Amino acid sequence: MLRTHTCGELRLSDINKQVTLSGWVQKSRDLGGMTFIDLRDRYGITQLAFNEDVDKEMNAQARSVSREFVIQVSGTVIERESKNKNNPTGEIEILVKEFKILNESVTPPFTIEDNTDGGDELRMKYRYLDLRRNEVRKNLELRHRMAIETRNYLDKLNFLEVETPVLIKSTPEGARDFVVPSRMNAGQFYALPQSPQTFKQLLMVGGFDRYYQIVKCFRDEDLRADRQPEFTQIDCEMSFVEQKDILDTFEGLVRHLFKAVKNIDMPFVPHMTYADAMKYYGNDKPDTRFEMKFVEMNQVVAGKNFKVFDEAELVVAICAKGAAEYTRKQLDELTEWVKRPQIGATGLVYARHNADGTIKSSVDKFYNEEDLKAWSVACGSQPGDLILVLAGSDEKTRKAMSELRLEMGARLGLRDKSKFSALWVIDFPLLEWNDGDPNLLASLAGRWHAKHHPFTSPNPEDFELLKTNPGAVRANAYDLVINGVEVGGGSIRIHNKELQAQMFDLLGFTKEEAQKQFGFLMNAFEFGAPPHGGLAFGFDRLCSLFGGSDSIRDFIAFPKNNSGRDVMIDSPSEISDEQLKELNILSTVTN
Amino acid sequence: MLRTHTCGELRLSDINKQVTLSGWVQKSRDLGGMTFIDLRDRYGITQLAFNEDVDKEMNAQARSVSREFVIQVSGTVIERESKNKNNPTGEIEILVKEFKILNESVTPPFTIEDNTDGGDELRMKYRYLDLRRNEVRKNLELRHRMAIETRNYLDKLNFLEVETPVLIKSTPEGARDFVVPSRMNAGQFYALPQSPQTFKQLLMVGGFDRYYQIVKCFRDEDLRADRQPEFTQIDCEMSFVEQKDILDTFEGLVRHLFKAVKNIDMPFVPHMTYADAMKYYGNDKPDTRFEMKFVEMNQVVAGKNFKVFDEAELVVAICAKGAAEYTRKQLDELTEWVKRPQIGATGLVYARHNADGTIKSSVDKFYNEEDLKAWSVACGSQPGDLILVLAGSDEKTRKAMSELRLEMGARLGLRDKSKFSALWVIDFPLLEWNDGDPNLLASLAGRWHAKHHPFTSPNPEDFELLKTNPGAVRANAYDLVINGVEVGGGSIRIHNKELQAQMFDLLGFTKEEAQKQFGFLMNAFEFGAPPHGGLAFGFDRLCSLFGGSDSIRDFIAFPKNNSGRDVMIDSPSEISDEQLKELNILSTVTN
Repeated sequence: MLRTHTCGELRLSDINKQVTLSGWVQKSRDLGGMTFIDLRDRYGITQLAFNEDVDKEMNAQARSVSREFVIQVSGTVIERESKNKNNPTGEIEILVKEFKILNESVTPPFTIEDNTDGGDELRMKYRYLDLRRNEVRKNLELRHRMAIETRNYLDKLNFLEVETPVLIKSTPEGARDFVVPSRMNAGQFYALPQSPQTFKQLLMVGGFDRYYQIVKCFRDEDLRADRQPEFTQIDCEMSFVEQKDILDTFEGLVRHLFKAVKNIDMPFVPHMTYADAMKYYGNDKPDTRFEMKFVEMNQVVAGKNFKVFDEAELVVAICAKGAAEYTRKQLDELTEWVKRPQIGATGLVYARHNADGTIKSSVDKFYNEEDLKAWSVACGSQPGDLILVLAGSDEKTRKAMSELRLEMGARLGLRDKSKFSALWVIDFPLLEWNDGDPNLLASLAGRWHAKHHPFTSPNPEDFELLKTNPGAVRANAYDLVINGVEVGGGSIRIHNKELQAQMFDLLGFTKEEAQKQFGFLMNAFEFGAPPHGGLAFGFDRLCSLFGGSDSIRDFIAFPKNNSGRDVMIDSPSEISDEQLKELNILSTVTN
Repeated sequence: MLRTHTCGELRLSDINKQVTLSGWVQKSRDLGGMTFIDLRDRYGITQLAFNEDVDKEMNAQARSVSREFVIQVSGTVIERESKNKNNPTGEIEILVKEFKILNESVTPPFTIEDNTDGGDELRMKYRYLDLRRNEVRKNLELRHRMAIETRNYLDKLNFLEVETPVLIKSTPEGARDFVVPSRMNAGQFYALPQSPQTFKQLLMVGGFDRYYQIVKCFRDEDLRADRQPEFTQIDCEMSFVEQKDILDTFEGLVRHLFKAVKNIDMPFVPHMTYADAMKYYGNDKPDTRFEMKFVEMNQVVAGKNFKVFDEAELVVAICAKGAAEYTRKQLDELTEWVKRPQIGATGLVYARHNADGTIKSSVDKFYNEEDLKAWSVACGSQPGDLILVLAGSDEKTRKAMSELRLEMGARLGLRDKSKFSALWVIDFPLLEWNDGDPNLLASLAGRWHAKHHPFTSPNPEDFELLKTNPGAVRANAYDLVINGVEVGGGSIRIHNKELQAQMFDLLGFTKEEAQKQFGFLMNAFEFGAPPHGGLAFGFDRLCSLFGGSDSIRDFIAFPKNNSGRDVMIDSPSEISDEQLKELNILSTVTN
């Protein structure tokens, strides 16, 4: 080893030890006869001291090194005169006796500091330098810890980690596949998995009982800030279970992770139906760090000749605690905010429940003090609170109010990234009507789509509705939501061949298409498929949530940009005509 | 849960417990008034008893189920009259009180038994049924255990598991890449990684210090029995290390795996130079479970007018202990064996060291008793041993003798799959001349190739030879060999930009090509790259070795066949014209 210790481990108890350290020059200070270098590695920073009186030449050498040089030093651990209590090694320093430059460095394009001067693009291009920054490294250390704790938890519960294939088969269901031309099977293509869904179900048919995998998945979607073409799932499946067993098992995983990784005792995770989530939060992934539940006001506000409310399909309010002192200017700004196209409300009505108990609204022309008291009762407002009301069509208004609720939560400081609130959302609709979506192939638009995926079991109580009112059928499906982020989801699967065939039929597959795409799974169901179910967590997102970040990119070592490019290695790139020819394909792009 | 216990856990101590089990019908026996079913799950087999006197209807139901039906039963644990000591649950049975068929099964195409009647093709097509067989499941349980023990060992040593990207950049070095057309970057392609080599080196430049990953890699090669287009590596890299540190660290891993997984105390692993491996075994991955080392006989056999020996570049012998009683017929057969084109020897000379001390050879015309005594001394033969001699050109003869040695080892029962012998082979040549190889792109044939890969550091002692005699330069590289199988290999890497550029130059890259393909890595070396090195284990192969099998396929849940096809899901397959169009490619195959 080119070191006896790391730069993070020496303490006062090591005084007088002869040690060798290697690392990067974080900074150096030249104090005339003395030179000090902060030497950095993954584990910390240790101060090196060079004394001109002891070794003039070495001191000159030390003065010559720049930031990010890689050096190796040997010397004695001594007590520091001016101690640095913020650094675990801050009570000691190394009096250097031997010194060697292991590699030089040109000046980095941005500073390797917690607060760097590098912009996003530059840091992506030099990702290997950005990785040297504490913050980025800590994110990936967190990710490592999350992965190993996940594995150990599941291993203890008899889950087997099984690797499923990456070169699989393209299916038109869901998002676009990335495909891989097969040289050995001319004219044919593999696809990269969007998830190992069918394989994990086949493992259950194969009697594996409990499966998991932390696995890369791929979707050729148009990218947003929090999406990557390749992403990682904690993918799990269990046999001989009902919904409750899965929720309990994976609630246990999440509680274990919070305890092991963040030393947080997570309370038990409540269950909420999809219907209630939409009713009280207008959102199937509500942020429950704060209340501010929806109050449906149609009855309360009716009959006062305020057309906007009287004619609205939905009038819905939230009570923002302690926000009564919002100024007119703030409220005007908030009104403009809800009217932005992304939110889509036509206006905002408010009522201030003042500290003196009076209530004043923006619609006092229609509602007198008495009426507003009724509002207050309905919303549970207290003096000092602000009631905010939106009206319009049900779906659109709920969506807008959900955004407003989240915005008010943020403005009132109720969305603290160090606080965590989890819930299971259950009883999702099995199907949704889809008129077409740019992320779906055109041939699949305008029909029922599986909200989760086509292998999700309907709630047994709703079997009859499958034929009469498919849109009303509840799925035996569930999402885990933490702080308004869907971190995982899954379902009890169909394990019966006839029901699976009925499902494909409902989704518009012909018998031939279903057989061609998923025949292997339906055939497998003929040979004694056990009842089974599972779920998958978005691992990148779970890590970013634990790390208190909104961006999954910060938790991926080598992420791609919004065009799906790795700007560091400059990929994707052109390939040779020889390669194309071997693969039996032509590019239609002329370069 | 659809069970209170698994089928593997009930014992005499559970007598009188009311339990519920779920699983598959392994077999049933109808003894008139009693029916017995063996119920199977991943954890074991439990006997169920149905008594016609207790419940006639249920007994009839039980008689109606066939093999592989999935059933759920509730009942009482009772002591069995005729105990089965070979089954951990063999002292009890369940007196069934409730009975439910969870799913039916048609007759499987082969029996789900340790000795199945299904052929390879059929079992690949119905892999999900093959997975139900004990043997296949145990292989994958072993793999799971290997993975988790690997991770825990490396975690304790501060290795961070970091996921590197799967969608990377095609480079012409090495085997063929699988490529992925980019929809968003028309005319451009990602490649799937043959290994995360450059990324793990960038992690070292990024200060990650210790990295590992159990990771899928991809090579579009023509397949053999022990190769798969996608395979898994334990991939590792460390900074501030020398060769010895890496060998010690990963010898530790292997010893840990042997202890934790197989309860074998592995002795410390010896080091052998590549030169010695070739000299004594004719093979850079010698099987050291047995000695039978090569003895170079040119001096010993010279000058007796036996032209074959006198004119041979190499005369080499092995001493097969205890094989003197081989019959003339056996020896003739062995002679035919070495003359097969795969072995390529022109003939075989032998000398029997008989039990009475006399020595008789197949070349007694040229060598008298005295001469043969000298052979015996050189080979260290004892009465009862057989000396086998090959002669010819050095390289070809060593190769043939290596095969003969392995064959004799097998015939003499010296290659016991439950015994393990490991060694590090070190000091490989850095470069090898390659005249062209069907697995390499034509443009790369006929030049120096990196024996390991172009990032391998030369042995510092041989730096000067790089210019004068590249073929003689030793690499700072090492392979771990167990039982004649190369299970892992790696090297100390180049961390200096100039040396890396010199290396690319030697390998025939123009400056422009090197910059285009690996510019990101050479640029990274400008910013303070630490000395670093690492290695990768072939995880599939390591598992098969631990499992005592020659085939990695047995240790992969869903392997592909020799045409790279998954015959279960029927992949690869054609994709739609719409998909091709979106990806800006055309297939040159007319369907």
